[in-house]
Amino acid sequence: MTDESRIWTAALVVVGDEILSGRTQDKNIAQVATWLGVQGIRLREVRVVPDDMAAIVEAVNTLRVRNDYLFTTGGIGPTHDDITVDAVAEALGVEVVIHPKARAILESYYASRGGLNDARLRMARVPDGADLIENRVSGAPGIRVGNVFLMAGVPGITAQMLDGLTGQLEGGLPLLSTTVGCWVAESEIADLLRETEQAFEGVQIGSYPFFREGKTGANFVIRSVSESQLKACAHKLEEGLAEIGRFPVTGGI
Amino acid sequence: MTDESRIWTAALVVVGDEILSGRTQDKNIAQVATWLGVQGIRLREVRVVPDDMAAIVEAVNTLRVRNDYLFTTGGIGPTHDDITVDAVAEALGVEVVIHPKARAILESYYASRGGLNDARLRMARVPDGADLIENRVSGAPGIRVGNVFLMAGVPGITAQMLDGLTGQLEGGLPLLSTTVGCWVAESEIADLLRETEQAFEGVQIGSYPFFREGKTGANFVIRSVSESQLKACAHKLEEGLAEIGRFPVTGGI
Repeated sequence: MTDESRIWTAALVVVGDEILSGRTQDKNIAQVATWLGVQGIRLREVRVVPDDMAAIVEAVNTLRVRNDYLFTTGGIGPTHDDITVDAVAEALGVEVVIHPKARAILESYYASRGGLNDARLRMARVPDGADLIENRVSGAPGIRVGNVFLMAGVPGITAQMLDGLTGQLEGGLPLLSTTVGCWVAESEIADLLRETEQAFEGVQIGSYPFFREGKTGANFVIRSVSESQLKACAHKLEEGLAEIGRFPVTGGI
Repeated sequence: MTDESRIWTAALVVVGDEILSGRTQDKNIAQVATWLGVQGIRLREVRVVPDDMAAIVEAVNTLRVRNDYLFTTGGIGPTHDDITVDAVAEALGVEVVIHPKARAILESYYASRGGLNDARLRMARVPDGADLIENRVSGAPGIRVGNVFLMAGVPGITAQMLDGLTGQLEGGLPLLSTTVGCWVAESEIADLLRETEQAFEGVQIGSYPFFREGKTGANFVIRSVSESQLKACAHKLEEGLAEIGRFPVTGGI
């Protein structure tokens, strides 16, 4: 029997100088976060670290211990700056080995693309004891070792790898959310938000202000694992907004 | 006299459940990273943490000590889920106080907007000893305390705060970059990349593959504080690509 109150957590290590230089806008955090939510797993922390062995090892070892799952993105390609496999192996205290099935996949993929050279063979290297995560886009597989999942840096490839993992990880109840929007300054209704949140056990309300068309507004995102609590809380908040003459927008603005 | 070889570093803590849930695509990492690069400061690590006191305190205390500067984004608004000021004060072991100038700014800003209520006054709270960072968009200022800089979660407001700080932080030589693109699989030229990088002291080459229009390509981003090294390395790489019959695209694809 599953313990429904158990909260499953994950962390993500984004490996990449290109994110830290500002050159590339990361898209993996949002994509991994959203996918995890559907699996009933909560993303608790993300670290973005450079292509540096010590930095990756530190992040991996800290986060894999205190979370059910740890994902990494980036640094599993064929070039000299791709060191995530080596760093994860070092973090786990295991050797790097050639995975026979990964080698076979790459041989087949590159048969019509110039053959398997040394650089391409790098993508068959895994921490000892690892399993593969299928990747239909580019041949090179992702890697699962213990509770650590190594995914690609290219968001489209990571999307495929996540798709391959869907439904395979044990999770808890998915965290549900609903949004109430309002053309109101959040600072006008801070008391209402706090009191509404406190009235519903296990419910969080996040307040996300914005400025659009020269006007101040905010979306209030209500989260809970209980759909009935979620609905009751949203209803209460909409009532509260209406009482002070503000028009709530169900679903957000 | 400035030590030109001194590398100045910064870290960033992104505070926000909305990023970890996947609901909001973060834009502050890229914006802060790019801005820091122009100041001659390198972003070394980013952590995304939830709206949770212990998580923020841990990240702030780890990162402020090992970097010259620490930035935070998010959690400085007027609502119950805005706890970054309290967390940074706890991390630094100081009290939270009302900053008189911040109070005056908010009083003036809200004079024509319904007045300063308790929630709005929360935005005048700072860790004891802090200075303000001007924000022309919404009145509420950012905060500087020691080497910690608290910025807004809304990217447009953080952009204004960064603008106000431009040129005020001591940095080193800015890290320059140039890009060479090529319609080539990076796995075909991994040796060329590694050897070219090794031939130039203090130069890094990052390889960023992509798939577009059904074709495989990559951009090679060359980074150095020395413009002459940068140019020489790019030239060498372009020569190497041409030698194997691949057409390099200066500036990237």
